[in-house]
Amino acid sequence: MIHDESPVRWSATATCGAARAGTLLTPHGQVSTPLFMPVATAATVKGVEIDRVAGTGAGMVLANAYHLHLRPGEELVGEMGGVARFMGWRGPTLTDSGGFQVFSLAKQVKVTEEGAFFRSHLDGRAVAFTPEASMRIQERIGADVAMQLDHVIALPAERGVVADAMRRSLRWAERCRAAHSRSDQALFGIVQGGLEPDLRAESAARLREIGFPGYAVGGLSVGEGPEAMVATLHATVPHLPAEKPRYLMGVGQPSDIVAAVGAGIDMFDCVLPTRCGRNSLIYTFAGPIRLRNARHASDETPLETDCPCPACRHGRGYLRHLFLAGEMLGPVLASIHNLTFYQRLVARLRAAVIAGRYEEESRNILGGMGATAAAGGSGPSG
Amino acid sequence: MIHDESPVRWSATATCGAARAGTLLTPHGQVSTPLFMPVATAATVKGVEIDRVAGTGAGMVLANAYHLHLRPGEELVGEMGGVARFMGWRGPTLTDSGGFQVFSLAKQVKVTEEGAFFRSHLDGRAVAFTPEASMRIQERIGADVAMQLDHVIALPAERGVVADAMRRSLRWAERCRAAHSRSDQALFGIVQGGLEPDLRAESAARLREIGFPGYAVGGLSVGEGPEAMVATLHATVPHLPAEKPRYLMGVGQPSDIVAAVGAGIDMFDCVLPTRCGRNSLIYTFAGPIRLRNARHASDETPLETDCPCPACRHGRGYLRHLFLAGEMLGPVLASIHNLTFYQRLVARLRAAVIAGRYEEESRNILGGMGATAAAGGSGPSG
Repeated sequence: MIHDESPVRWSATATCGAARAGTLLTPHGQVSTPLFMPVATAATVKGVEIDRVAGTGAGMVLANAYHLHLRPGEELVGEMGGVARFMGWRGPTLTDSGGFQVFSLAKQVKVTEEGAFFRSHLDGRAVAFTPEASMRIQERIGADVAMQLDHVIALPAERGVVADAMRRSLRWAERCRAAHSRSDQALFGIVQGGLEPDLRAESAARLREIGFPGYAVGGLSVGEGPEAMVATLHATVPHLPAEKPRYLMGVGQPSDIVAAVGAGIDMFDCVLPTRCGRNSLIYTFAGPIRLRNARHASDETPLETDCPCPACRHGRGYLRHLFLAGEMLGPVLASIHNLTFYQRLVARLRAAVIAGRYEEESRNILGGMGATAAAGGSGPSG
Repeated sequence: MIHDESPVRWSATATCGAARAGTLLTPHGQVSTPLFMPVATAATVKGVEIDRVAGTGAGMVLANAYHLHLRPGEELVGEMGGVARFMGWRGPTLTDSGGFQVFSLAKQVKVTEEGAFFRSHLDGRAVAFTPEASMRIQERIGADVAMQLDHVIALPAERGVVADAMRRSLRWAERCRAAHSRSDQALFGIVQGGLEPDLRAESAARLREIGFPGYAVGGLSVGEGPEAMVATLHATVPHLPAEKPRYLMGVGQPSDIVAAVGAGIDMFDCVLPTRCGRNSLIYTFAGPIRLRNARHASDETPLETDCPCPACRHGRGYLRHLFLAGEMLGPVLASIHNLTFYQRLVARLRAAVIAGRYEEESRNILGGMGATAAAGGSGPSG
């Protein structure tokens, strides 16, 4: 596939330092960047109707090929028109290859040069995820963007182990590129290399030589801490082509996103808004709210005064009651709020890039949330 | 309180045989009857946002004083502006007194003439539900309609036991009437008497003498079967004043509602649509759907072709996937669909009364659902 024929392309709108604002063009519509993708692991954002997902401001959604392969199977998803149609999402979608889930969920995992062999965590069935198989699975699932299969390893790890996995991921990137043939789906490469700047540079350069319409940075937000994450981004991103989108996988805390956009990242996905929402932890521009705290018991004010989401038509006391009573609606509303917050966050970051005020807006946002400006906070404290 | 000053009144629009169509007028708005109240036990319809509840066509919602008393407590609910405001419901509400929950949920229950004494199923706390306490609790919760505290017993029971409980409920009705003083809240009486026509008649007549702005029929849909239920209604309803609303508590299957409207009932509540929804059982005018059945695996058609609910923008195969994958969104969407079905059902019944075609429409509806016409089906079979 010649690059300028890629079905997924990115064009810049503005830059401010290393930060960019742009537009991702896909067969299922355009999305402004920086963008945040809610995670619809098994073709659903947990507990959230697809129209509510759109209502949060999301323009693109992520689904996971590992989960969909195991259940209901990519054949059924393909038969139902592909993952977007399957879940009723009218815009663009992206699938993760499952490399991380093999690493984190599967049983009896054995990784060889051929691929990753494991047993399903659902029913123990034997599964083979080779680069070629991953491409077939993702083509059948039919998202607009597919991700290469990469070799994910546990961190911390010795440099030699990190290097070996990075180079295997490069060989798998080549195999994915060769096997991938669906012309209306883009395949992104994933930069690996741990926290080693030279390994990251090697990975990025080799991926560029292979040539992808977009590049992800993988293997971060695995416990390295925000300072190390940002440092690694600064060592990696300059080696990626400016005219292609950059996707930081699995990130992150709001402060991580602020820092990463500042380092030149365009795309994000993370389970944090929904997972934290289900656990009664609320993100706001004034900092996090631990909703089960007794101080919120009779508070009639919303989570955030100017938030347009369905949770914010209620008082905090009501939402707290839902959580204490074990009611499903608590996690549902909290997830919708947090997803709305994440969309409002990236919208503010985008506006700041366009206005040429990224540093200033970063400080405002981080200061408002009570996070430290240097590298982003390490997590909610309130 | 003089009856014609009641804050809740009912006026007839049309009759067809014993069936009625009318309007319930309340301090929080009007609702057409026959009406079906979704059950918001703990101030939430399980998993369903309050705006979605309104979207189903519901005009009035039921909450439960037993649950709200235990958690979060009527004081907090009152402090937050009453149950409707607490849950963001803009229309009228009704609270059940908790008599049934004391019977079905509480531990170490002891019922005396004074009241029902028990231990909370949540934390074992000792609780006293006397008629007077129930009135205080429900006044603080602040629904538009409160229900008397009645003495609920297990069925089947010997006639003597049924009669004793019925007469105690009458004495408690008098005490509730005397204790209830909130002028913007109506108190309804509850007819008891098991399946004994003479006991039912006695209960109804005595409640009329005490005088309530509305009358409920309690103690049915407890396993007696649809034929016995309908027969008891026919023995009871004629003893109730025509100009007051009649509320059949805890009913029921769609066919039960069809039969009960035909016997002169105006108001219903039931957990069936939401409980069955959470268990993947779907109600439609073409009969029930057991969504986990493999025949639906790759079905792209909606649950019901002309249903406007959010679930029906998806195919059955997707909804089935959600249930098989244990995803929260399955129960949420199925509940919304079933609630929408129940509202569409009562709307059709109302239209049939107004058009003078109740018998015919009953047969159409029951025939379409595959239920028997005589007394309504006994449950889903498909």
